[in-house]
Amino acid sequence: MELDRRRPGQSAITTPRKEADQVEILSGIYNGVTLGTPIAMMVRNTDQRPAAYDNVRDVFRPSHADFTYTAKYGIRAVEGGGRSSARETLARVAAGAIAKKILSVAAGVRITAYVERVQDISMPELETAPEAALVEANEVRCPHAETAERMIERIKAVRLDRDSVGGVVRCHLANVPAGLGEPVFDRLEADLAKAMLSIPATKGFEFGSGFAGTFLRGSEHNDAFVSREGRIRTATNRSGGIQGGISNGEEIVFRVAFKPTATIMRTQQTVDAQGNETELAAKGRHDPCVLPRAVPVVEAMAALVLVDQLMRQKAQNDVLPLA
Amino acid sequence: MELDRRRPGQSAITTPRKEADQVEILSGIYNGVTLGTPIAMMVRNTDQRPAAYDNVRDVFRPSHADFTYTAKYGIRAVEGGGRSSARETLARVAAGAIAKKILSVAAGVRITAYVERVQDISMPELETAPEAALVEANEVRCPHAETAERMIERIKAVRLDRDSVGGVVRCHLANVPAGLGEPVFDRLEADLAKAMLSIPATKGFEFGSGFAGTFLRGSEHNDAFVSREGRIRTATNRSGGIQGGISNGEEIVFRVAFKPTATIMRTQQTVDAQGNETELAAKGRHDPCVLPRAVPVVEAMAALVLVDQLMRQKAQNDVLPLA
Amino acid sequence: MELDRRRPGQSAITTPRKEADQVEILSGIYNGVTLGTPIAMMVRNTDQRPAAYDNVRDVFRPSHADFTYTAKYGIRAVEGGGRSSARETLARVAAGAIAKKILSVAAGVRITAYVERVQDISMPELETAPEAALVEANEVRCPHAETAERMIERIKAVRLDRDSVGGVVRCHLANVPAGLGEPVFDRLEADLAKAMLSIPATKGFEFGSGFAGTFLRGSEHNDAFVSREGRIRTATNRSGGIQGGISNGEEIVFRVAFKPTATIMRTQQTVDAQGNETELAAKGRHDPCVLPRAVPVVEAMAALVLVDQLMRQKAQNDVLPLA
Amino acid sequence: MELDRRRPGQSAITTPRKEADQVEILSGIYNGVTLGTPIAMMVRNTDQRPAAYDNVRDVFRPSHADFTYTAKYGIRAVEGGGRSSARETLARVAAGAIAKKILSVAAGVRITAYVERVQDISMPELETAPEAALVEANEVRCPHAETAERMIERIKAVRLDRDSVGGVVRCHLANVPAGLGEPVFDRLEADLAKAMLSIPATKGFEFGSGFAGTFLRGSEHNDAFVSREGRIRTATNRSGGIQGGISNGEEIVFRVAFKPTATIMRTQQTVDAQGNETELAAKGRHDPCVLPRAVPVVEAMAALVLVDQLMRQKAQNDVLPLA
Repeated sequence: MELDRRRPGQSAITTPRKEADQVEILSGIYNGVTLGTPIAMMVRNTDQRPAAYDNVRDVFRPSHADFTYTAKYGIRAVEGGGRSSARETLARVAAGAIAKKILSVAAGVRITAYVERVQDISMPELETAPEAALVEANEVRCPHAETAERMIERIKAVRLDRDSVGGVVRCHLANVPAGLGEPVFDRLEADLAKAMLSIPATKGFEFGSGFAGTFLRGSEHNDAFVSREGRIRTATNRSGGIQGGISNGEEIVFRVAFKPTATIMRTQQTVDAQGNETELAAKGRHDPCVLPRAVPVVEAMAALVLVDQLMRQKAQNDVLPLA
Repeated sequence: MELDRRRPGQSAITTPRKEADQVEILSGIYNGVTLGTPIAMMVRNTDQRPAAYDNVRDVFRPSHADFTYTAKYGIRAVEGGGRSSARETLARVAAGAIAKKILSVAAGVRITAYVERVQDISMPELETAPEAALVEANEVRCPHAETAERMIERIKAVRLDRDSVGGVVRCHLANVPAGLGEPVFDRLEADLAKAMLSIPATKGFEFGSGFAGTFLRGSEHNDAFVSREGRIRTATNRSGGIQGGISNGEEIVFRVAFKPTATIMRTQQTVDAQGNETELAAKGRHDPCVLPRAVPVVEAMAALVLVDQLMRQKAQNDVLPLA
Repeated sequence: MELDRRRPGQSAITTPRKEADQVEILSGIYNGVTLGTPIAMMVRNTDQRPAAYDNVRDVFRPSHADFTYTAKYGIRAVEGGGRSSARETLARVAAGAIAKKILSVAAGVRITAYVERVQDISMPELETAPEAALVEANEVRCPHAETAERMIERIKAVRLDRDSVGGVVRCHLANVPAGLGEPVFDRLEADLAKAMLSIPATKGFEFGSGFAGTFLRGSEHNDAFVSREGRIRTATNRSGGIQGGISNGEEIVFRVAFKPTATIMRTQQTVDAQGNETELAAKGRHDPCVLPRAVPVVEAMAALVLVDQLMRQKAQNDVLPLA
Repeated sequence: MELDRRRPGQSAITTPRKEADQVEILSGIYNGVTLGTPIAMMVRNTDQRPAAYDNVRDVFRPSHADFTYTAKYGIRAVEGGGRSSARETLARVAAGAIAKKILSVAAGVRITAYVERVQDISMPELETAPEAALVEANEVRCPHAETAERMIERIKAVRLDRDSVGGVVRCHLANVPAGLGEPVFDRLEADLAKAMLSIPATKGFEFGSGFAGTFLRGSEHNDAFVSREGRIRTATNRSGGIQGGISNGEEIVFRVAFKPTATIMRTQQTVDAQGNETELAAKGRHDPCVLPRAVPVVEAMAALVLVDQLMRQKAQNDVLPLA
């Protein structure tokens, strides 16, 4: 079940919060099949410890949303971080599980994300998606076993040091039909970028050759078209499966940067709501590295983008071109 | 005028196409002031040379949208690239000029983008926005004069070599009021990411510390809050002016990666619509580096995102919190 | 509480279903005040009797959604009518209660709907909104006591006859500020029309002079402008408070037609899913006339439209006109 | 051509303004076929007489949008009524022509509107759509020849009397596939109601049995299902082709009320922007009855609603139900 991949307390390198994440389906499913009408699901938060947030009631945690929520709304829910808590990504994973199913049934699409880098520990770049089983084979969700081990060690060391680390998640979308994406504003890469940057703790997005591709010349960067097995393909995939905002049938590949967790156990300088200087050290139970649990969130958001564009494409297809 | 900054033929390092880019205002302005109703503007394309596209009528240009448009629509306009032409960014700059005006009047926001890197030639990182005059002081729109010179040389050399280069545009949004952005899906960084990735030839987006920030630990990365001149500020700005999806009043800074121009004068391998191998060398008049002309497009898209979020914030403000 | 006005089992002339309609607030409220973030509310259906729907499992009830849901989705939830059940209006009333509060705080808007006609029993036309207490003074929600009595008698008689009746709900929106509504597609009357026709069992909408106004000449129909107490007003209100799609500060008045309840206890002719002729008589517990319980639904939908347009207007106001 | 049916100056009973209404297609069509990308069309207003509006510069015309536009925007374009002019319906008819074509190609849908009543002169109610040729056979667009003659006489008499009249347009949508429309907010009748009430000068909307149906009992009003030629049909059509918000395959029928034209040649009382009483008599060239020219606008808006719902339905169809 997708939700278990995001669930806290799943391994030694994640937060020890124990949330059962039991889904109650409220509507849209009838005798085990969908009705076409909206599917509502609910998961109750069962392991709250509001007292753990008493010390931040009037204090702004560094690099958290405490200050901006107060600036925006004039009020904020303190316990558990309120709406700014990354617990909300649970809902994305739940919706994404259905999106993945639709994509699989309607088009055979496969979505595979994994942790490619933790801080400076990086696995070799893959040309095509790894087996999902390799990703799930270790608790850091890196399909390269040796690198995974080093990542896990690093995360454990950092936790002991009461600190945190970030890194990069990479995602492959295989079997996406050519033709998804709109030409101008709702380009497929634009929708993916928005979806990824809407995930808490993200700092960047790149697809295909990404930032590294900007060091190449056009003659080195262009993907030559070739004929292979009766289909038109590209010899290389620096386009990352998207050209002119539209999928070209190659694997869509992109990366998402995640910052080191803002909540750390060390004492930090900050101010309270009146602007007085104060110190703060996190209590509570937090992830020293969000990436392993972010993997299913990245997959879920990618799935939701693809379903949306797939539905648009179906809506447009029947009468074009029209004379 | 903003449109002149995007206009082709403006300097020796851009395409020599001569498009006057004369705007006709069709509605929404009355005796020099806005009416509140939609402003329609039109610019006609006056320097078309359709014959220059005869050789790509049945051929898919590498890393262009020819193949994907055909896959999506079953038909494509060949001349000038049709709707996939980056000429459409003119409309963005025109709309952005009005958005900039609104932001300036309503909130004193200043938007400054510039070319930070061309291929491997990079200027020193700036902490705050440069003077706009420095950006406009040279034809590559890099505010660091020495770096600008080297960039221009590189672009000229690449053109002679019938090749192209890419790079990075950086953008600063100053004086953005704290509180813009929605908590979950329409986070300010998500909207900016979508806006930027919707620009042709872009490959990536990062804000604040970006991908580089993922190499730091949380204790190194967090922005401590401090009190300065009676306002709550952050001592550093790795958050890039956005925390929890919402502006915090610091400068918003982000980078956009642009690939090397796909259209090059060299002979390239490709296939035609029937999958037969063929060769192609561009005719026509093209930019060896799109970055100088992309600067006003980046600014325009940022302005449109900010106006949208500013309007949302105004819509929500009056009755909150409600007891 | 608004929900009690819609609740089944509230009087002798409504369905005897006993639904407690207890609201659980899931998010967005903190120590009794709103947080600005979305407010989620949930009401569980506590008085289900699925067995009562066994006889319609394969049969299409006349003038119900059984056939169209099957045509649209290939499947339908039988028990309780599934998503086609008017129970969904509970959610509208819950959301509308918050919208009413916002309108009251932000602009002093008052919303008053009532039953103006049941079948052919009609109360005298009111020029301005009646007191809310008069509407709630009787179980049919008609503010004219004598008419209300006759309406109640009719509904009781019809129920005894195992039949149903429809009628007209009228609604007044008082203190709506001038300037709400968009000029072309999202005209205020267009948004109200959509909101009202989205309520189950509705057949028509008219505002101001409505269909009757089409029998007048322009010289009889136009509302002359006059100056009254320092404000520009209209001498009459055939415009129904809306001119050119935008509120003019007069009371907004409109009517909504509700058909006689489709579910009746009499035997009716119909077909089953295979097209075979069959007979059907409703079991279960149903309203012989939906109008008394529709009154809070009409008010809720009107409130939601006004909040939406009020927020749009706030979003647009600050920088217009712009020179 | 659809635009000629809306064009001013087409007959003796419409405004004598001479607008050529020549369409220039700006994008989206290539060698006579659509490209899938947006189709932009432009029609320039060629018969402007701004001087005719000098007398209303500071005066609010009764039952016009002059006052509300000023209230909303603080400014208004005086000449020709600015954006509040019904000239904007030209754009709807242009878009509707394409929507009609799509509906015809994709589903064989036929859309037929006509003038059913002018003031108190009404034609007999039709069960199914009349031939389009009958509608176009006379200048008032009423398919019942005798009634049409009386309508024309009335309109001519009213014009001589420097007054105006309104009435009712009825519309039939034939061959609409069952299954269009969403269950709750975007019900097909709700979308049609919004579309119709967004047309200038409209006062009401009803579908199927409409307001008249509220005088019936449920046993008289329900549409029995029957089997006919292997399809499930309804014996009567008081549902107007829509049940539970979704089309049932029967003809969709609805009526739209149009008020008498606000602009009349008689002297009327009003006030100026300062609230001073004044008198006003229209100059300019105006329709004494908008209904004949409103017929293609009603058809266009209906076509746009159907295309939108048809595209939604196509988007949803492929994977339902999902196990």
